[in-house]
Amino acid sequence: MTQLPPFLEDPGGTRGAIMSATYVALCKHGYSDLTIQRIGDEFSKSKSLLYHHYDSKDDLLLDFLEFMLNQVEEQIPVYGDGDVDDHIGEIVDQTFGFGDTATPTEFTQAIVELRSQATHNDDYREYFTRSDRFIRKHIAHTIRSGIEQGEFQEVDPQQTAALFQSVFLGTMVFRVTNDEEAVLEDSRDAFERYIREYLLVEE
Amino acid sequence: MTQLPPFLEDPGGTRGAIMSATYVALCKHGYSDLTIQRIGDEFSKSKSLLYHHYDSKDDLLLDFLEFMLNQVEEQIPVYGDGDVDDHIGEIVDQTFGFGDTATPTEFTQAIVELRSQATHNDDYREYFTRSDRFIRKHIAHTIRSGIEQGEFQEVDPQQTAALFQSVFLGTMVFRVTNDEEAVLEDSRDAFERYIREYLLVEE
Repeated sequence: MTQLPPFLEDPGGTRGAIMSATYVALCKHGYSDLTIQRIGDEFSKSKSLLYHHYDSKDDLLLDFLEFMLNQVEEQIPVYGDGDVDDHIGEIVDQTFGFGDTATPTEFTQAIVELRSQATHNDDYREYFTRSDRFIRKHIAHTIRSGIEQGEFQEVDPQQTAALFQSVFLGTMVFRVTNDEEAVLEDSRDAFERYIREYLLVEE
Repeated sequence: MTQLPPFLEDPGGTRGAIMSATYVALCKHGYSDLTIQRIGDEFSKSKSLLYHHYDSKDDLLLDFLEFMLNQVEEQIPVYGDGDVDDHIGEIVDQTFGFGDTATPTEFTQAIVELRSQATHNDDYREYFTRSDRFIRKHIAHTIRSGIEQGEFQEVDPQQTAALFQSVFLGTMVFRVTNDEEAVLEDSRDAFERYIREYLLVEE
């Protein structure tokens, strides 16, 4: 059975119930084999509601992505003085997803499939452009705070955040399209060394 | 009209002609809308040959990927003493694809779509695991040579190559699923600074 992320366990309202059903169905079937019918199979209320609210599978999935982005926006950690270093550690943990057991592989697979829709669907591309921008701003803000607090070297926050994001995206795709897990660990080790030796100010 | 890469302009033989037709059809239709019929439309010989040789669209596309990998294996640059630095520059150029006008965006889009098939298709995942391994070995070999020649710092070649590959993959996906080109330039700038200040031995 698919383990729902906490915010989808009891999201409330019809839209919340639809979002939970979509999450479960997406993990179960992936993007290609997903249909509104199959989302309906995970939905406790009347299936006709789904057809009433959404014109197509993609229409529903775009609303689902929007819902997920709102959750990320609300849950993004707030940090105070002196814990920027820990916060970068958290970003690296999230990037490489080790120990991030809250995200099932099936969900990452589905997100990579959704992302590949953006190669030929403008609505998906608009969405990923916007969500990437949000995450990048957050990373740049963390780096900027670290520089102001004297913990990070004087790097360019925006450029460094863009590199973080490339590594993040590459790692995510790697994880679900390549069988060699050791490569992820190698990449993580090299990235941590980069941060330690290049980004952090030596004690 | 799709510009063929040099090795597909006159590849020779039936398989070569099929490979050229596949390249053109893939650029024109992308993965999702591709059919053997549409590949046949770009094929000068009898279409029945396609059905004779291949059981399915994926069967044909996997043979096409194999063909492309063989080309990469044959064309991978050989370098001598003292040009390791240039060679890393070439790898970065290829990674970020600026000036790499030989690869049409449509082809990168198609490759990202094919890659996303690996989330649920073992044959694709086996292929990408193998081709990633080949490219990573090549990068690691270049880094190792750079260290031996005293041009690079004593980094771990394998880990560093894995990071290069994450950046490479992330950049490729970014390019065709996000509208903000400035991010690619930012990421490239940060990556070049990483190489200059962290990988290269100071003059």
